[in-house]
Formats: sequence, C-alpha cells, structure tokens
Amino acid sequence: MNYTQILVDKADGIATITLNRPEKMNAFTRTMMDEIIAAMDDIDADDDVRAVIFTGQGDRAFCAGADLTPEGGGHVFSDPTPVDDLSDERARDGGGRLTLRLFDSTKPLISACNGVAVGVGITMQLAMDIRLASDNARYGFVFARRGIVPEACSSWFLPRIVGISQALEWCYTGRVFDAAEAKAGGLVRSVHPQAELMDVARGLAREIADNTSAISVAMTRAMMWRLPSGDHPMDAHRIDSRAIYRLSRGADAKEGIASFLEKRNPAYPGKVSQDMPDFYPWWDEAEYR
Amino acid sequence: MNYTQILVDKADGIATITLNRPEKMNAFTRTMMDEIIAAMDDIDADDDVRAVIFTGQGDRAFCAGADLTPEGGGHVFSDPTPVDDLSDERARDGGGRLTLRLFDSTKPLISACNGVAVGVGITMQLAMDIRLASDNARYGFVFARRGIVPEACSSWFLPRIVGISQALEWCYTGRVFDAAEAKAGGLVRSVHPQAELMDVARGLAREIADNTSAISVAMTRAMMWRLPSGDHPMDAHRIDSRAIYRLSRGADAKEGIASFLEKRNPAYPGKVSQDMPDFYPWWDEAEYR
Amino acid sequence: MNYTQILVDKADGIATITLNRPEKMNAFTRTMMDEIIAAMDDIDADDDVRAVIFTGQGDRAFCAGADLTPEGGGHVFSDPTPVDDLSDERARDGGGRLTLRLFDSTKPLISACNGVAVGVGITMQLAMDIRLASDNARYGFVFARRGIVPEACSSWFLPRIVGISQALEWCYTGRVFDAAEAKAGGLVRSVHPQAELMDVARGLAREIADNTSAISVAMTRAMMWRLPSGDHPMDAHRIDSRAIYRLSRGADAKEGIASFLEKRNPAYPGKVSQDMPDFYPWWDEAEYR
Repeated sequence: MNYTQILVDKADGIATITLNRPEKMNAFTRTMMDEIIAAMDDIDADDDVRAVIFTGQGDRAFCAGADLTPEGGGHVFSDPTPVDDLSDERARDGGGRLTLRLFDSTKPLISACNGVAVGVGITMQLAMDIRLASDNARYGFVFARRGIVPEACSSWFLPRIVGISQALEWCYTGRVFDAAEAKAGGLVRSVHPQAELMDVARGLAREIADNTSAISVAMTRAMMWRLPSGDHPMDAHRIDSRAIYRLSRGADAKEGIASFLEKRNPAYPGKVSQDMPDFYPWWDEAEYR
Repeated sequence: MNYTQILVDKADGIATITLNRPEKMNAFTRTMMDEIIAAMDDIDADDDVRAVIFTGQGDRAFCAGADLTPEGGGHVFSDPTPVDDLSDERARDGGGRLTLRLFDSTKPLISACNGVAVGVGITMQLAMDIRLASDNARYGFVFARRGIVPEACSSWFLPRIVGISQALEWCYTGRVFDAAEAKAGGLVRSVHPQAELMDVARGLAREIADNTSAISVAMTRAMMWRLPSGDHPMDAHRIDSRAIYRLSRGADAKEGIASFLEKRNPAYPGKVSQDMPDFYPWWDEAEYR
Repeated sequence: MNYTQILVDKADGIATITLNRPEKMNAFTRTMMDEIIAAMDDIDADDDVRAVIFTGQGDRAFCAGADLTPEGGGHVFSDPTPVDDLSDERARDGGGRLTLRLFDSTKPLISACNGVAVGVGITMQLAMDIRLASDNARYGFVFARRGIVPEACSSWFLPRIVGISQALEWCYTGRVFDAAEAKAGGLVRSVHPQAELMDVARGLAREIADNTSAISVAMTRAMMWRLPSGDHPMDAHRIDSRAIYRLSRGADAKEGIASFLEKRNPAYPGKVSQDMPDFYPWWDEAEYR
C-alpha cells in the first residue's frame, strides 16, 4: 500500500502506525483518516499481527488536531458539500468514522502518545485499548474553545474511561494539560521518558503476542467493549457460556493447557481470519442514519 | 425573586446558590427544594450566567440532610397526603425532583462543599458536574442507619461517579467520612482549606466563562450525561456528527478560530436561549409514572 | 447441611464461606459451585445473617482456578454431555451460574482474598461487593493464556469495577499480578497483612451488622447493582421514590430515628424474609436462552 500521511510497519507480530506529517505536528486530515482505516483493514486481515501501536512522527506531537488549512483537504470534520438532511452519510464526523473503525478491530490497540495530542489527536486515542504517554505529552479537549463539541464518539468513550466528572471538567474548560494530570485523571495508564516510550509499548505488545491465543484476545476485545452496557449480567453469561463451550473444546485450549503443563512457550494454531467460534459476531452492525 | 432559604448571587457570569439555614446546618426542606428549582429555572433562562456554584451558609455545614422536624415543613421526602398508587406524583421523592432538575441544566454545576454533607446533603451534589471539598467537609450516605435507602437517584449517579464497590461500601455502612476519604474514593475532585474553597470554585467557573462557547458547553453537558449508556458508540456518532456539522458552520466556531489565530480573548455571540442547533433536544422527556 | 468442599460458619450475624480444598489450592469444581449456591440459598433465607465473607482455606490460595483434573469432576466449565444447541442449559458456564447467584443475594458480600486467585478464583470475586486482599494475594485473568476467554460474566462485572482499559490490559496479557497492582488498578479496596485480613473483613461486616437496617441494605444492594445502567436517572427516581415512600413510614425508619435521637444502638425489627416493600422485586428474572 502507498500511504502518504502515515507509516505502517509490521515486525515480529506487531504493527506500528505512525501519523506522519511532522511538519504539521501530524495534524489530522481526511486523507489521514482514509489511510488509517485502510491500514486497519489490512491489519485486521493479517493473522500475523497480534497487536497495533499508534504513535506520531517526531518528538513534538502525536497529533495536533484537525488540520483546518486548505492544505488539510478542506473541511476535515465533514464533507464540504452542504446537505439538507443531517442523517446524510456525508454529514458524518470524520473522527467518529475513525473511532468506529477502531472499535471494530480484532487486535489490541495501544497508543504511544509522544507529544501534543489535542482535539481529534486525543479523541481518536479514546477508542484504543491502552494509552501510554511520554513525559512531554500534552492533552486538550479544546472543542469548547473553538465553538464546537467533543467528537469522534467521545461522549461515549470518555466517561467510560475517566468517569463523568473528569470528562466534564476537561471538556468544559477546554484546557491543555500535561501527562501527569492525564495519569492522575485516568486518561493514560502510565507516563514514560520520551526515549523509552516505544520500548514500553512494544514490551506490552510482546507480552500479549508471546503468551496468548489470538482467538482469545479477539473474543475478549469484543466481549469487554460490547457487553458491559446491558441491564443485567445475563447477556454476558449467554455469550461467555457459548465462548467457553466452544473454545474449551478447541485447538487453542489444548495448546494452552499443554504448554502450561509442559512449561514451554505456547504456539496457538487458531487464526482469527477463519477460526472464530460459529456464533461470532453475535451482534448486528450499527448503521448510521 | 424572594427566596427564604437560599441566597442567589449573580456576578461576572457566575451564579452562586447558597443554602441558607445556618442555624439548622442548612437542613433540606420542601421550601428549599422549591427555591433551588426556581433558581435553576431563572439561571438556565439567563444567558449571562455561564456557571453555577452551590455552597452552604456558615462554616459548619453544606447541608445536614433532610429537616425532619415539623419546622421542616412536614415530611420532606414526599407529600404527607397518603396515596394509594405508588405511581402518584405526590409519592415522588423530593431529593430526586431536585437532582432531575439539576440533570436538565444547561450550565456547568460546581459544588463547593464547605462542611457537613449527609443524606440529601451529599446526594444532591451527585447531580452536580464537579465536586470540591473544604478540608473540614464530612460526608455520609447514612440512609441504612435510618431505615431508609439512598434517594435522589443516587443509585444512578453514585456508581457512575465512584464505581459500584465504593458506592456499596459507603451506603452499606452508612458511616460518616472525611474529605480525604471522599477524595481517595473519587467522590470529590480536590480538597482545599475552607478559606480558599470559594476562590477555587470561582477560578474553575472563570476558566469556563472566559474561554468557552456557552453553546458548546451546553451541548457537551447534554452529550456527556445522556449518551454514554447506550450499547454502541454509534448513538454518540449520530449526535456528535450533527453537532459538528451545525456548529462548525456557526458563529461561535468562526469566533473560536478567529480569536485563536489572533491570540485574543474570544467573545462568542451564541446564546443558549436561542442558538442551540435545530436537532436539540434530541431526546424525549422522561416522565414519572 | 453436609458440605464437602466448603466450610460455612455463622456467628454473630456474619456468615463465612471458606473454600476448602487446601491441598488443591482450593481449585474450583462443579461440586464446589453447587455447594456455594446451596450455602447462599441457606444464608439468604436466614434473617440472622447480615453479611457474608468469602475466603480460602490455608495461607497460600483463595482459589487457584478451575480444577482441570478428572478428580475435579470432569470438565468444570460446562456439562460434559455434548449439546447441539448453544442455548441449551447444559452448555452454561459454571462460573457464571455462581456469579449470577451471588448477584441475586440480599446480603453484602465481602471477599477476603488470602492468596492466589486466578481464573474463576478471581472472576467469582467480581460479583462480590467489596474485595479485600492479603499482602501475598496474587491475581490473574489468565484465560487468554489457556486459549479460552474470561467467564463468569466478567465482561459485565470487570469493566464496571476497574474501567475498560485496565480490564482489557489484564485480560489481554493474562499476566499474574500482585496485591499492590490490584489495589492500584481498583480491583481491591485495601491490602492487609495476611494475619490481619479476616479481622478487617469481620470489622467491615460488623460495621454493617451493628448499625444498619437489613431491609435498607437489601434494597440498597438491588438498587445499586440493577439500576445504574439505564439511559436516564428517571428509572432510579421511580424506584427510590417508592422505596422512600414505603420505608419512611415503616418500623425500621421509626427505630432508626428513635435510636439516633436517643443516642443508643438500633434494634431494627424488619426482616428481609417478610418485610421487603410490596413492589420488590421490581424486575423480571432474566432467563438463560
């Protein structure tokens, strides 16, 4: 694939997507959105990739938000063509199209936030599973200071991650805050010297890739993100009963037990592209309207 | 307006509601409930007010719970007239009528808890967006020690704020705890010397009032409180796409970008009373039954 | 009752359930599941019991997960009889059958985790209200390292307790972690020297038993666990209005106020077996299908 605004690297079971407009502090454009989505389609179809790391090129920024200049490809938030009907697909927010694609991923997503992350630069990270920060990272949900609102489904993601009160404070004030405040508020899992950030991210990805079944991880991702909002744990029980019933009789469980008893590294045969249990996916796709 | 149990002050875009029965430790009555609701109706209709601070008169208490004496106006929880049908409006909990009104507010709500807050004195604060505590604050979800249950919709609010386990521990034991435990458990955002509490609250309100669009903040409040409980981020995507589409073409976004580029303070023209986007509100009002 | 794999002790209003296969690190079996469920049925019917403590026999383990040996009674996760239809009752996960039973309890459930707790050894604790750890406790959501997935409804419970990102990290890596990491991540409320663990658990149970109404606590448990997931606080308002209306006119409220005013210990007359308000339970039982 020929990407122009991102870099995609695959090595040893880990894919790294680097936002690559360092001269623009990796500002977000429609082209960048299209390229990340294409890269995710490629990565999800590649059974060799076990985890994905997102970072920004350079030592200043992860992503400084939407590129509002003409060079950014026109209005980044939505198609510049006026629409009459707000349910028109062309009125869809680009940040949300990206986070919904990340939501559908079958791989663990890790952000290695190496600097400034404001606007969509931070809201895109909300759909990633684990957020790491370098000590020079700075965050801002600056939307109310621009006359707009948090986008990219952040009203769904942010309160789940940091709680409603912290979400409101950051979004009401629109202030830019540092990595320590992000850690204290629950936005990031840990803060690291910038020079060590990628090593920590790769170490976490390795821990997953070296020890676990890809089927187990893909199922766990879908179950944890999609089941918790129901009224009663019974919905979870229906799905995890089916999952345990099928997977405990499968090849990966056999290898998991055998490698454990033999005290050796596991080599799970299961492939997400073809070996997910028969009841997966158990949900209907959500449609925009 | 002539309030008898609260004080309402408006200055520089900030409204302050002070519970004002210091000789009774600001205990809650039906009159106080009616007055706070009336004050909120007035404040929400006033485009000059950008944030609301709640505090208690005196240096001892925010609110010592429901006034159970005859002077408190009879049974504070519900109308003293016996009802046959529990769906009767007269059987409604007064604390809940208050928190539901706060839930519908279009302004950021900040509590400056200056002392004792037990029973409805703390549950009313759960519907406020950001809770600050003075170092002498004490809290108690004392309901199980009185033979009743947490009210004011606190089974909805409290687990969202502090998590299910902390919520249960405080409500099961009914114990009174100090500001440090409240901070550690996630109930309050920060603890301050009593003499500095109002300055901190005003500073936070100022940060919002001086920098942000009122339309953005009102939209953000509705989106964050009302969207997160859905099963899938698509519901959020539908609303924030519409919001970004409308607001990014509006006067406040123009002023937000212009003031940012010109490095000056913004002067957003939008008024919540008349300029909210056409699809707002996007929900049906919930009815008691 | 004749239990073979657990011990059940009742004293001074506190029931203690001890997983009792110390030679097997208290590994979970179908028999153990049946016995815990039977013990919970007995305890919920016993108005003298005001709180339940769960712990493991010995000083090494709370529960080392499912016993996968033949001695463990065959396949512990589900009935060994093959089923064609995944909605068959026999395909139900045993861990989930246990956590759903705990979910329905009317008493506060406290775990005193005295050592290793991996697999179902920790997921069963997610349905308990408050988790305490000894300093030698170790936890592991090891499912992805065995080719299976988190069970026992943990996709419903775990994100509610520790948030989605921490839940995913522990389940993706499957790593075993210590009590300090469990505390930092919000999985346990506090960590104690092993020799003091049971005293702390009993102290917490005593605080509840000595001060509160059993009716209030049973109602609070149902309200906090079952109401928070709705879209709007109105559902909570409907239930807590009914609860306040009924309970504030009841015998326990009278005793609560009287003992408070007379500064003496309360003696609430209400019994969960017969005095719950007329609208309880207000939900339909969830069925497996």
